[in-house]
Formats: sequence, structure tokens, C-alpha cells
Amino acid sequence: MAKRIRLAKRVVAESDRLAAELADRFRAAGVFAANLMSSPGSGKTSLLEETARRLAGEFRMAVIEGDLATDRDARRIQKAGIPSVQINTGGGCHLSARQVRDALERFDLAALDVLFIENVGNLVCPAEFDLGEHRRVVLASTPEGDDKPAKYPLAFHKADCVVLNKIDLLAATGFSREAFRGFVRGLNPSVPVLEVSCRTGEGLDAWFDWVRAERRAAAAGGARSSK
Amino acid sequence: MAKRIRLAKRVVAESDRLAAELADRFRAAGVFAANLMSSPGSGKTSLLEETARRLAGEFRMAVIEGDLATDRDARRIQKAGIPSVQINTGGGCHLSARQVRDALERFDLAALDVLFIENVGNLVCPAEFDLGEHRRVVLASTPEGDDKPAKYPLAFHKADCVVLNKIDLLAATGFSREAFRGFVRGLNPSVPVLEVSCRTGEGLDAWFDWVRAERRAAAAGGARSSK
Repeated sequence: MAKRIRLAKRVVAESDRLAAELADRFRAAGVFAANLMSSPGSGKTSLLEETARRLAGEFRMAVIEGDLATDRDARRIQKAGIPSVQINTGGGCHLSARQVRDALERFDLAALDVLFIENVGNLVCPAEFDLGEHRRVVLASTPEGDDKPAKYPLAFHKADCVVLNKIDLLAATGFSREAFRGFVRGLNPSVPVLEVSCRTGEGLDAWFDWVRAERRAAAAGGARSSK
Repeated sequence: MAKRIRLAKRVVAESDRLAAELADRFRAAGVFAANLMSSPGSGKTSLLEETARRLAGEFRMAVIEGDLATDRDARRIQKAGIPSVQINTGGGCHLSARQVRDALERFDLAALDVLFIENVGNLVCPAEFDLGEHRRVVLASTPEGDDKPAKYPLAFHKADCVVLNKIDLLAATGFSREAFRGFVRGLNPSVPVLEVSCRTGEGLDAWFDWVRAERRAAAAGGARSSK
């Protein structure tokens, strides 16, 4: 058991070292990097498609897509007009700093303003791994139920921004926004909670403004989240 | 690296040994055991609540609930009228055979006909771990999108039954049942796909019939899935 713990510690230390390297590279290039995580099907790719369409005139953007299999999401993003690289993890349940570093070989970071990293759809494991990002964005969606923050606390505790998607299905799903916000506040009192619908466009302006403000802060050398 | 692989192999072997022990215990007690897995919020607990209400007169049932945190699901099941034990995994992303074995201390297996094991909400990691169950049930729900089998192939490949929940939201979500069934068939040609709505009750009879048939097969000493 002691051997297993020593080994695990070494793996974690290596992962943290690579994440710190990535953070240095993002800072040096003046790129705002955001790590998006959620359950499968909460709408990460849909949010990035809308972002690609709306902000393409303002920022030079790119997306790293993490999935167990297929390049479906990378193709969706490319169709929305911005470059995207797909990482297939095989069975891997989260993106690793090493995988992100390898994917960066395929971008010219100095030619970018914003890099989105779409993690594997999984509300558990990705929350444990730093990818050097400035900010962590956690998505939830109304059909998943309003108690998800209580049941998956680490992801919400470490979020710098919570996006509640599919607000158009609020009535049909019996979702309580008050209950949801209560659970989020209990874990992370000051995090913004943005209610959006990628399907109808409702609320997306607040998300675009959040990206603009965070991009400005990163370009001005602002520190990354210490969460 | 060789050391890490040896260690991982030892952990897997121990997990498989415990799972085989569990399978023996379920068989000896004549209990049908089903392992339910899905993304967070697909409706595992809702399906079990409906099952508790409908089948309580036919079978002696119990539920083992796996969650990172809270006992919300165990309380929901108890309120629906059947015994339930909550396992909190802390950060753990799936239930382990050891956790199930420990939870069994709190049941009299010989006094049960059916045991449901509700895994942690995660479409990735739980698929890798045998818990000694007769059958694996994988849930998906229409708001998650019809491409989830393609993106999370192992869970669907190993499923003995696929339950597609929230069929009442089909139109509102633009979900294609043909696309979904096509992806499932590509991974698992003969698996039944049951379309249900735990909210409206639509399609649940087919699920209850599936449970009855599998319970009969298990009670008659039928083999567990070799997937």
C-alpha cells in the first residue's frame, strides 16, 4: 500500500509540474485558457459553437476537444468556424496536462487570444486535474436536476464560472433554480451562475461578456485561479 | 513504468476476485442483481423509484446507492418504499466490488429477490468495473443528445439493457431515436433498447417486464452476462 501511495504521489507531482508549464506558456503567449467540464450532454460543444460564431470577429480562438472516442465535436467546432484539435483518450476519463501539451504542438499559441479546452464529459474525474488553465467553467443543464452540485461537489467547488444550460427546458423538467443556486452557493459562495439556452440564445450575452472580461484580465497579466 | 503496470494488474485482479465472490453470493441467494450506470441526471434514481412503487408487491427488493456525496438518493428510494443503503465514495468515480461487499453486510441477501446497484453518475469509469451483477443496465436520456453511445462506447458495448429515458422531451431536444439506435446497434447489436419516461410513465411496462424476465432467469440459475 505504501508503494502504491508513493507511486500515486509521483504521478500527481508530474501532472502538476506539466500543468504549471502549460500555465507559463499561456501567460507568455497572452492567451486566455479556459477548461470546460460537465456531465455528458450538458452542452459544452454547443456553448463553444455559439461562442465561435459570436466572438470570431473579436478574438482569435481555438478549441482542444477531449473525448473517449470520435472526432464529432472537433468537426462541429470547425464547422462553426474556428480551429479545433481532437484528443481521443481511449478509455481515459479526463484530459491530462500531457495530452494538452501534445495538442498544443498543433497550434501557434502566439497567434491566439483565447483557447478553450473541452474536457471529457464527466462531472467527477476532470475536476481533479489542473491543465494550466486561467479559469474553470462548469456546465450543468436543467434536465440533469437541480441537486447536481450537492452530489458532485468538487467540480462546483473549484469552478470559476457556472453555466446553467437548457434554461428553455426549465418548466418541462421541474428544475428549481433557487435550489440549484443554493447548492452552488454552499460550495462556492462568489462564483457567477449564468443561465443560458444554447438552443434559443437566451442569456448567452452574459457568457460572452464573461469571456471578454476574463480575456482582458489574462492579457493584462492577471493571475489564474488559485482554486 | 513496469512497476506501475504490475501494481495496476494486482489491483484489477483483486477487484475481479471480489466481483466473482459477489456473483457467487448473489447466485447462492437466488437474488437477481442489476448494476445501473449512466451520466449524472439521466434518471437512474427515478427509474428505481418507479420500480419500487410498481414491483413492491411482486418482489422483495433493495437498492445500493453510489454517490460521491449526500444520501439524497437513498432517502428517495426509502420514501418509495424499499430498503436502500447509501455508499459515499468521497471522490471515487465508480463503485468498487469491495464497497458493494461492505454494503451487503447491511442486507439479508437470502430475504431478497432483486438487488439494484445504482452506480456513481459517470458514463466512463463504472463501465470498467464488474460488481458481480447478473446484468448491466445503461441509461441515457434524450436531452444528453443522440450521439452519446458513439462518444462513450464501452458503457454501451457492455450493456445488457439500454434504457432511453425522458422520451417525453424528444421533440423539445431534437433527439433522433434512429441515430441513437444506430449508434447502439453498432456497438451492441442485440441489446434491447427500452424507451421510457419516468415522468409520464410511458414505456415503463417494458422495463418492468424486463426485470421480471431477468429475475426469473436468475432464480432458475441462469448465467450472468459474459460481456
